[in-house]
Amino acid sequence: MKAFCFDVFGTVVDWRAGIAREAADFFSEYDLTGIDPYEFADSWRNLYQPAMEACRSGKRPFTRLDILHRENLGIVLGNYGVNTAGLSPDALERLNSAWHRLDPWPDVVGGLTRLKQHSIIAPASNGNIALMVNMAKRAHIPWDAILGAEVTQAYKPSPPAYTRMVEILGLSPKEVCMVAAHNNDLHAARLCGLSTAFVPRKTEHGTNQITDLEPSENWDIVARDFNHLADLVVKN
Amino acid sequence: MKAFCFDVFGTVVDWRAGIAREAADFFSEYDLTGIDPYEFADSWRNLYQPAMEACRSGKRPFTRLDILHRENLGIVLGNYGVNTAGLSPDALERLNSAWHRLDPWPDVVGGLTRLKQHSIIAPASNGNIALMVNMAKRAHIPWDAILGAEVTQAYKPSPPAYTRMVEILGLSPKEVCMVAAHNNDLHAARLCGLSTAFVPRKTEHGTNQITDLEPSENWDIVARDFNHLADLVVKN
Repeated sequence: MKAFCFDVFGTVVDWRAGIAREAADFFSEYDLTGIDPYEFADSWRNLYQPAMEACRSGKRPFTRLDILHRENLGIVLGNYGVNTAGLSPDALERLNSAWHRLDPWPDVVGGLTRLKQHSIIAPASNGNIALMVNMAKRAHIPWDAILGAEVTQAYKPSPPAYTRMVEILGLSPKEVCMVAAHNNDLHAARLCGLSTAFVPRKTEHGTNQITDLEPSENWDIVARDFNHLADLVVKN
Repeated sequence: MKAFCFDVFGTVVDWRAGIAREAADFFSEYDLTGIDPYEFADSWRNLYQPAMEACRSGKRPFTRLDILHRENLGIVLGNYGVNTAGLSPDALERLNSAWHRLDPWPDVVGGLTRLKQHSIIAPASNGNIALMVNMAKRAHIPWDAILGAEVTQAYKPSPPAYTRMVEILGLSPKEVCMVAAHNNDLHAARLCGLSTAFVPRKTEHGTNQITDLEPSENWDIVARDFNHLADLVVKN
């Protein structure tokens, strides 16, 4: 395996805690009471798949995630009864860019730093390039390149999101390992011939999470976290 | 300036010496005598602009540089009277990938490592993503992202090569500084509103070089090399 390509939201960063943190600050600043910030994070995230599906299905052209997030932010605030017309565009833009300021899980930077000595490491995220670059600069995530939806112009789990990435890297599918905490992402990658590595993130959706606690197929690698992934790969 | 985007061939790496080195090995392996490897490097490089011009003009769709280089390699070997049918595809592919193994000028890694603490740093090269990633891995060039022609689907000096890069970074044009040893690259970037930095590479074309020895316009920054560039930027 010459390259490891990573799902990011959930696998590399704890999006739920990060969004809840910045949402709480936003609610406090604008005296918006009675909205649970974690529930708000979940509600915002729930609009993510339908928004991408519009692009995947061809109903709209490929549109970068910052724009989809911004549209969804207006919808979710409206659903909570917030009058967004009374909020400054800058404040909404600032909250939208909270996705650029998510923190990695504690094992990420150490594990990736070791893996980078061995292989190409890159995000294969549905997040756009600026989002990934800003996140990596802030959190010192040592990517070799920023790949993903904006480069392939396709949202996972569409096959071109994987096949174009392999072609861009100039490698064979087996030489590229998709790393994710989500079995469905790995399933789609495997159908395109990629290698697969599962790293569970059992609190991505909070302490009551019931999905993706275990591997659903015999993935090529199953690691406890990114340090364990580096142990398994660098040893081989 | 929040991001510095770099021309690569000539500005970051010494393509002429690198190609000559691997060409000399190739000629030796196949007993091809009487071809000067530096002249060969120049001849191969001379086919670079016409090949990209076919894409820029719309005569052919955007095609990544590894493919254009490979086509041009066949042409230039033919021009030297080499019968490429007698050579293995693997050997030709290996020589073609010499562009992935070019060495940076001595000031590059130190200067970029300091600049990276201050700003986003990325290649804005006509080279494709795999070429840039492999080059950076081998030479330890610490890019934050790989931008350039394959991401923007446009070859410099076409305006979209600059404007799409600025948009992808989510910045204003002035916040993005194009760094190049070539005045024409900076001229095109300035027309798109980008900031500009000139770093001369007076032996890119050998010791008798007569082009790009001096800045041709009042670029925003003129630095002696990448260490000096880091001095000027990190101080400000």
